Amino acid sequence: MIYMDNSATSPIKEEVFNAMIPYLKEEFGNPSTFYTLGRNAKKAVEEARENIAKLINADTKEIIFTSGGTESDNMAIKGVALKFEDKGKHIITTEIEHPAVLRTCEFLESRGFELSYLPVNENGIISTEDLKNAIREDTILISVMHANNEIGTIQPIEEVGKIAKENNILFHCDAVQSVGKIPVDVKEANIDLLSISSHKIYGPKGVGVLFIKKGLKLELLIHGGGQENGLRSGTENVPGIVGFGKAAELAYEHLDENIAKLKQLRDSLIEKILERIPESYLNGDRENRLPNNANFRFSSIEGEGLILRLDAEGINGATGSACSSKSLKASYVLSALGLEDEEIHGSLRLSLGTENNMKDVDVVVDAIAKVVGELREMSPLWDNKNNVSLELDESKFTDSNN
Amino acid sequence: MIYMDNSATSPIKEEVFNAMIPYLKEEFGNPSTFYTLGRNAKKAVEEARENIAKLINADTKEIIFTSGGTESDNMAIKGVALKFEDKGKHIITTEIEHPAVLRTCEFLESRGFELSYLPVNENGIISTEDLKNAIREDTILISVMHANNEIGTIQPIEEVGKIAKENNILFHCDAVQSVGKIPVDVKEANIDLLSISSHKIYGPKGVGVLFIKKGLKLELLIHGGGQENGLRSGTENVPGIVGFGKAAELAYEHLDENIAKLKQLRDSLIEKILERIPESYLNGDRENRLPNNANFRFSSIEGEGLILRLDAEGINGATGSACSSKSLKASYVLSALGLEDEEIHGSLRLSLGTENNMKDVDVVVDAIAKVVGELREMSPLWDNKNNVSLELDESKFTDSNN
Repeated sequence: MIYMDNSATSPIKEEVFNAMIPYLKEEFGNPSTFYTLGRNAKKAVEEARENIAKLINADTKEIIFTSGGTESDNMAIKGVALKFEDKGKHIITTEIEHPAVLRTCEFLESRGFELSYLPVNENGIISTEDLKNAIREDTILISVMHANNEIGTIQPIEEVGKIAKENNILFHCDAVQSVGKIPVDVKEANIDLLSISSHKIYGPKGVGVLFIKKGLKLELLIHGGGQENGLRSGTENVPGIVGFGKAAELAYEHLDENIAKLKQLRDSLIEKILERIPESYLNGDRENRLPNNANFRFSSIEGEGLILRLDAEGINGATGSACSSKSLKASYVLSALGLEDEEIHGSLRLSLGTENNMKDVDVVVDAIAKVVGELREMSPLWDNKNNVSLELDESKFTDSNN
Repeated sequence: MIYMDNSATSPIKEEVFNAMIPYLKEEFGNPSTFYTLGRNAKKAVEEARENIAKLINADTKEIIFTSGGTESDNMAIKGVALKFEDKGKHIITTEIEHPAVLRTCEFLESRGFELSYLPVNENGIISTEDLKNAIREDTILISVMHANNEIGTIQPIEEVGKIAKENNILFHCDAVQSVGKIPVDVKEANIDLLSISSHKIYGPKGVGVLFIKKGLKLELLIHGGGQENGLRSGTENVPGIVGFGKAAELAYEHLDENIAKLKQLRDSLIEKILERIPESYLNGDRENRLPNNANFRFSSIEGEGLILRLDAEGINGATGSACSSKSLKASYVLSALGLEDEEIHGSLRLSLGTENNMKDVDVVVDAIAKVVGELREMSPLWDNKNNVSLELDESKFTDSNN
């Protein structure tokens, strides 16, 4: 099997697995108890906290463990909204945020908040001018993701942070796809709240972090026994947290080499696909892009068929977002780039992992070329004789082979 | 080491650990993806759901995976409150609920809801007459725990469910301490919402369930990608869920034998402690009690000292609730029984597990007798000559040696 859906979830690294095992076995204590077993668990949680703080240049007290990126997004956005609603009920976000942010914003809209959704350009990047223009007197929060989960496009978060700070508005950044893959510095980018997930960086599922800048008080999402410095209750998922900590440590240690390796694989993948397959296109920005993300579209085919045939070839990739890939609705992210539904349905996301190598890339390129060819042979939209699409309006594809 | 703090958390059973391993290794797929790896993960989650449904006599569609009991409590209570606030803003609960319920209720109070907290009798049991009297026209929810986490007292939930149904009020039951330890039947008890935790029944930490009765719609706590039938978003904690499922399966299979075994151990523990140690008392109800819970108080000593000395002897027990055992405040649960602060501070919870045996009981009894003796020797409140407490008002202890 060749796995290229690391943006959906990533395999647990062996070092991570090994670090977790004692906490699934003999070291099963509850960190809230104060006999030896409990203190051991508490110590392990604090070590993990240090590793995660280091990865994003935060202080350990600013790291709050949650059950994952989705909870972190909910905790941040609802936490600010409910805490500061007397100050204002306006929130700015973007059209291409993860559903964890968008559905949370819609929930707040249903309860009297007003939302501004920033559009993106054809490569998926917001305009900071749009952001400045959207700011109102009652704006309490700007929520802009770091890197998009579908197209890997990286937003100018340092500029967003600067604008937020200048206007005295809180800045939440969903960095689930970027932390551990590219440098993230909460201080440099003036970030007040940052969401992270473990299972996107070779850690276990079921654990995440919300970074909360020192001094910032939120309304809580989950009330109870007062764990996580009173900010997130519930018995700590000790093995998960330990695994996340180890994954963060590894990500920090190998960041530069992983970036270099993944970029090389990604660039080769993009180059070969666009060269080899007629009417293939890259979705998203060519430069401001996660080192591990490639998102293609192929005219005259359906992405679902592509995924299933690739699966039969032992290759795992995704259409649309991992979190909603079962939906047959056209990706709202690709739609925000200005693409038509039929173009969106012919899209495929490949997200590389550190386990991949150049041979994987070649196998995947061969398989995609074969499968796309087969699907087009059966497609009523493809002219097999001339090897071009039949109904294609060429003017639409402005970023072809770029 | 002898572990007798299973109400705080329990060790993971070997079968549970073994069931989890594949999902921490090669079967790391995201259940929301639809290639083979993802479908395998999805299938594993659904199998776990079946085992948990069976344990509480629910349908699989009524089982929603969460990050734990605390999240389940928050999701249930806030979910009802926000969904039905137009119908009424009054909620009834008890004085001895877990902090996950109490802090959630306090949050709702801060947002305009009105709460009635039912008192308990000297053994920790509510009166159904009090419940009936507390019901108002605008009561939308009754939240009564099944078994208390500190004293193991079991509430009459069938009667509570009947009263709730007769009055057309929703009934949430925090069953974190009871599920898997005594029979729980959501249909028989007319329960609309039931919270469960994995790590209290020999499953992993970081996973729980909220049972939501078919047809009942709640406001969501965590919005996003639409996992768990749209009710709880976030990538599923697959290994955790699989472990929880296996733990539920084992609990179901061995329920009767575990009850019999634990009752025998518990009764022996209670009998020996009360017989052997002067001025020792059992907190909570002697009969309506979890088979694995014993909660003692010893006059003239401090529970914290007791815990630390027992730890040094290789024995793990807790004062107060596991979730707040670091707090030096007197247990609100014991306080609700009518005990004075100095009596509460001399209390010790021992919660047995299926791994314990009669030899453990004897070792623990010996150790407690020794440590209590040592602490009393140093205590200014103990008359070492006559082996009685100095300042004790005997009239307070009505349930001594019962």
